[in-house]
Amino acid sequence: MAVDVGGTKTAVGLVRRDGRVLAWRMRPAGVERGPDAMISDYVMLAEEVVREAGVAPRDTVGIGVGCGGPLNPWTGVVYGPANLPGWEEVPLAARLSEALGLPAFVENDANAAALAEYWYGAGRGFDPLVYFTVSTGIGAGVIIRGEIYEGATGNAAELGHTVVRVGGRPCRCGGRGCLEAYCSGTSIAERAREALARGDEQALASGLGSLGRPPRAEDVVALARAGDPLARSLWEETVDVLAAGVVNAIHAFNPRRVVLGGGVTRAGEDLFRPLRARVQRLGMRALVAGVEVVPAQLGDLVGVLGAGAVAFLRTERGEAAGYGRD
Amino acid sequence: MAVDVGGTKTAVGLVRRDGRVLAWRMRPAGVERGPDAMISDYVMLAEEVVREAGVAPRDTVGIGVGCGGPLNPWTGVVYGPANLPGWEEVPLAARLSEALGLPAFVENDANAAALAEYWYGAGRGFDPLVYFTVSTGIGAGVIIRGEIYEGATGNAAELGHTVVRVGGRPCRCGGRGCLEAYCSGTSIAERAREALARGDEQALASGLGSLGRPPRAEDVVALARAGDPLARSLWEETVDVLAAGVVNAIHAFNPRRVVLGGGVTRAGEDLFRPLRARVQRLGMRALVAGVEVVPAQLGDLVGVLGAGAVAFLRTERGEAAGYGRD
Repeated sequence: MAVDVGGTKTAVGLVRRDGRVLAWRMRPAGVERGPDAMISDYVMLAEEVVREAGVAPRDTVGIGVGCGGPLNPWTGVVYGPANLPGWEEVPLAARLSEALGLPAFVENDANAAALAEYWYGAGRGFDPLVYFTVSTGIGAGVIIRGEIYEGATGNAAELGHTVVRVGGRPCRCGGRGCLEAYCSGTSIAERAREALARGDEQALASGLGSLGRPPRAEDVVALARAGDPLARSLWEETVDVLAAGVVNAIHAFNPRRVVLGGGVTRAGEDLFRPLRARVQRLGMRALVAGVEVVPAQLGDLVGVLGAGAVAFLRTERGEAAGYGRD
Repeated sequence: MAVDVGGTKTAVGLVRRDGRVLAWRMRPAGVERGPDAMISDYVMLAEEVVREAGVAPRDTVGIGVGCGGPLNPWTGVVYGPANLPGWEEVPLAARLSEALGLPAFVENDANAAALAEYWYGAGRGFDPLVYFTVSTGIGAGVIIRGEIYEGATGNAAELGHTVVRVGGRPCRCGGRGCLEAYCSGTSIAERAREALARGDEQALASGLGSLGRPPRAEDVVALARAGDPLARSLWEETVDVLAAGVVNAIHAFNPRRVVLGGGVTRAGEDLFRPLRARVQRLGMRALVAGVEVVPAQLGDLVGVLGAGAVAFLRTERGEAAGYGRD
């Protein structure tokens, strides 16, 4: 059983070890209702998918959950992720486990997605693997020797919050100059609005100012492709900064491959072509040679597949349940 | 037997598993003579130290070597480190092994130093551990589950070459804006020279301009302490950038402790006090809370202790010799 806890949508599925999704449901997250109501949704949707798939709950290995951090993957307690207001110290694994009578395992959603791309997607056979999701925020996960790299407190690989410009743009994490503060979809849109607000010649001439609504990241991509000078300069900076973030991850983890998913990667080769060139130019030869930077393959299913993979990985490792350790 | 291959000095010692150094020798590296003459030195010094310690070479577990990268720790081949001119593809492990009749294991010197601080120094009991050496360059090593984290090609943890200022100062690695390009001893001195060359009021008034020789990193520290405004602003920037580098390592590896060694850390609390404050302010709570940033403890012996520790670690792991794998 796989639960993808999101800030905008909830997805629950029944997933096999080989990556086949037997049944799944998605619905708006309704974060304004708080954790109790949301957890009831997960339980209800879980009961629906097992019924639809015709599988008895006791025939599943357990419940895997992907959720925004910070959280403790060993106790399954979630500590107030930015996208889940009111989730202060919620014992998510214990709550789901009690309600469904199955062991439950909670993992950072970007880590779970990294595992899914490693098992089923663009990262198959590439270990160590670095995965980024470039979406409303930037998350990341690292696979080392077939395991999610957790670090001391289960919060490793916060690569969206590595500083790429000391003293630079403020970030919602409280720091400054983070990768996320430039390259997340939200930050690209913000930078576009700020550039328009400067009101200089390039801003006045830009199609970003005549959309009849605030520009979004995808507008920047589309207009950059069309040759709009302001959009091009915004997109160039996005790729420059993202390349630094990818190089930093390569210099730290020396991976065999880097996989990028998330909404911003829908830009496709407008992103990947210049990004690859910059990574190869900026990085140290002994580290970047032969390391491909490739798009994620699992699309919208990555959340459910990742959560499912977490349940399989951790039951295979002999963990009785995702809580009770500290 | 422990060989510390440096660009300015060579050190060879006989080290016990408990960290006691039974005998050791240090001499100028003489890099201008090239690898053959240097390797002959290592062999000669190794014979001297075993004689002095009264130990038969066959009673040692083997030869551990710390050397600048890039190198392949599994084959023991060294690929032209910046500080060793002429060392293009030198099979260092094989050469030493043949000459001394013992298995030999080559490791990146910063990785070896990280292991030494983890076994014998400021990192004891802290796993994961991140170690930086802030010296003429900036090297780093990471210990995960008691092992040196090597990555795909044995070149992981090049944290001196993570980008902290996109498009910033050129770095000797070929990249731009690397941590090393601001905070190594060499870069601090360069930034001081550049600031003097601007010739503005602060530069004209600075004691850095009246030393009768180009300023060094330690001059910046001493004059900053004495209240010289230019030196203070150079040192502030150094600490700001180094804090970003430390935070990036913490956000990537989620370690339990960060140890800093190397010449620049002789600044002592003038470095560590403001550095700790900035790391705690800039980093994410779930990652920086409780993580101490502390000075290395092993001083000049770290090279020999690290090389020795590599020999013990790898023979304990059952590696027959540090080459032959690929």
